[in-house]
Amino acid sequence: MKSKIKKIQISGIRSFTGLFKEDPQMLYLTIGEPDLDTPELIKAAAKKALDDNLTHYPPALGIEALRKRIAQYENETFDDDLSIDEIIITNGATEGLILSMWTLLKENTNIVLPTPGYTLYQSQASLSGGEVRLLDTISDNFQIDEDKLRALVDEQTHALILTSPNNPSGEVLTQKSLDAVYRVMLDYPNLHVILDDVYNTFVYEEDLATLRAFKDIRDRLLIVQAFSKSHAMTGWRIGYVIAPSSIIDEMHKLHQNLMAGVSSITQYASIAAFDVDTAYMKADYKKRRDYVYQRLVDMGLEVNKPKGAFYIFPNIEKFNMSSYDFAYQCATEYKVAMIPGIYFGSEGFVRLSYCYAMSDLKEALDRLERFVESLST
Amino acid sequence: MKSKIKKIQISGIRSFTGLFKEDPQMLYLTIGEPDLDTPELIKAAAKKALDDNLTHYPPALGIEALRKRIAQYENETFDDDLSIDEIIITNGATEGLILSMWTLLKENTNIVLPTPGYTLYQSQASLSGGEVRLLDTISDNFQIDEDKLRALVDEQTHALILTSPNNPSGEVLTQKSLDAVYRVMLDYPNLHVILDDVYNTFVYEEDLATLRAFKDIRDRLLIVQAFSKSHAMTGWRIGYVIAPSSIIDEMHKLHQNLMAGVSSITQYASIAAFDVDTAYMKADYKKRRDYVYQRLVDMGLEVNKPKGAFYIFPNIEKFNMSSYDFAYQCATEYKVAMIPGIYFGSEGFVRLSYCYAMSDLKEALDRLERFVESLST
Repeated sequence: MKSKIKKIQISGIRSFTGLFKEDPQMLYLTIGEPDLDTPELIKAAAKKALDDNLTHYPPALGIEALRKRIAQYENETFDDDLSIDEIIITNGATEGLILSMWTLLKENTNIVLPTPGYTLYQSQASLSGGEVRLLDTISDNFQIDEDKLRALVDEQTHALILTSPNNPSGEVLTQKSLDAVYRVMLDYPNLHVILDDVYNTFVYEEDLATLRAFKDIRDRLLIVQAFSKSHAMTGWRIGYVIAPSSIIDEMHKLHQNLMAGVSSITQYASIAAFDVDTAYMKADYKKRRDYVYQRLVDMGLEVNKPKGAFYIFPNIEKFNMSSYDFAYQCATEYKVAMIPGIYFGSEGFVRLSYCYAMSDLKEALDRLERFVESLST
Repeated sequence: MKSKIKKIQISGIRSFTGLFKEDPQMLYLTIGEPDLDTPELIKAAAKKALDDNLTHYPPALGIEALRKRIAQYENETFDDDLSIDEIIITNGATEGLILSMWTLLKENTNIVLPTPGYTLYQSQASLSGGEVRLLDTISDNFQIDEDKLRALVDEQTHALILTSPNNPSGEVLTQKSLDAVYRVMLDYPNLHVILDDVYNTFVYEEDLATLRAFKDIRDRLLIVQAFSKSHAMTGWRIGYVIAPSSIIDEMHKLHQNLMAGVSSITQYASIAAFDVDTAYMKADYKKRRDYVYQRLVDMGLEVNKPKGAFYIFPNIEKFNMSSYDFAYQCATEYKVAMIPGIYFGSEGFVRLSYCYAMSDLKEALDRLERFVESLST
């Protein structure tokens, strides 16, 4: 393990953001974190857990009442038939992802990661010992092309990660993309798909298509979920994985060896999360999305209107700069920080997170506009 | 990683305890968890963090205010000179242990584990890829014999774990044991020592000797600590590791990939832990220790008086039964559950945890006494 750790780096998002931490003028559009606070109902449930002294060891798999509530929600929402044996509580989606990769991958297997994609997937996959194969989706407008996927997949491909809505692009996978993945899965029985579904409550246009609709490959899906984004609970560190019970059993052992369990107080609080109507969050993000999108269009940038999550991913190819140079120059000279596309595996783009207050968004976009103008003249 | 997970098992303590969960009459002396609740001051600090909406992403290394408070405490208590760069906040000691093993070990290295020792060390070491070498301490009254240690150590020995006070024996390492380890470390510059110090506030007789007193090997010590036992916070899942900053940097990367960070609410609450006087806990455990020890002596068992922690480890060799059979028969026929010594790597003993209410201890020991009598006649 020691040699594997040597090879990975601190998250690019965190380290790039850290470059400017001494600059009091900097405005950040960098971190994918709701600026909204955790809803009162959830905080009240945490306080009740404290008053009830529910401060003792939780079961490693997670508290049964929470796993039951999750099963109920998932079964209602996705017409599913889950039992609690198919659910493990994790320290955020981050742990859910690495448990998924570690239970699927070993030496001489490989994992396909669509790019652009979340920064941590690559380092987590490296730690798991599997070979990483990148599937570029830029030229397919962030969708999955069946031929390109088939060119990467073989019998040793044990995992593929799908993130819809996507970080960093804000795109959602179309039914056509999912059909392509489904057909490839039929031909490769070793292939499991990890659905990183942490943004799936923030979809602004139509209903979200999901691979979960194909019941005959249901036992090869691992669904990674968290309360972090959906309920503004990033600091609580709680999520879960849904997978066949044979895979959950393996995750259970690993999870116990990694951390014994997830905070009991946080787990009791999360049961209350299902009683919170988060429609106001979605409405809020949608308003910000519309504003940010229009501003980027108005300043002449080529950009897709995001269909979900809280990111937007404008194309900056026309400036003939690397995404790092673009973001670095914008930050140092115009005091607005964004994340270079290269940290998501794709040059030619930068990621803006728009989960910031409207006043900050306006000022940050004014600065970006001046930077873009300076490059165009 | 997948193949490594296959080889490990669910914790023996948890699975043995689970065998009897349907039996309403069972009394448990199995789990090493304070029956005391978390002190009010710490719960109040958690509520304040909730009221202050400190519910957003913490830094992966941990909140600076907590790391500062830890450094202050450790420097005062151990005459040390730590900076916060030498401290990372972890999800309990469990994560601290695996971060330590994973940053020290790789293929073709080995780790020495004294037995009897905590169940999870062996599976964590297996996951790290290092070879496990067991150092039997039974015939040395749970101390480290220099010759036996030297017989196991070579240039590829990168880690040794010391637990004092010990789980399961309740023994503390003497200065003679520590001197032996120190001399071996001088001869093997690759050898790092992981100090699992989670019981170090519960020492009942004299001052606790520590390897930290040897300043010239200070940069090869990794100290794993947690609030779980010392502050009755097992359910909160918070601990920390003290190590040279170059090792903390490696742990930081791994920790970020494992779980992104530890609950911000729990971290803010833990700052208040340093303002709690836990002398009442120690006095309470000492009273129970004295009672349990005397009962075991009175029923004719050979047993050391524990010097720390909240376990006692009587010898059961005279009954000519495996520790599993002894514990299983006692549980099924006399309704009191203890942990077989074999789960700590040593036959001929059972572990009783005495962090249970005095009334439960009395009844459980009455039952054990009847079981022992039945075996003796």
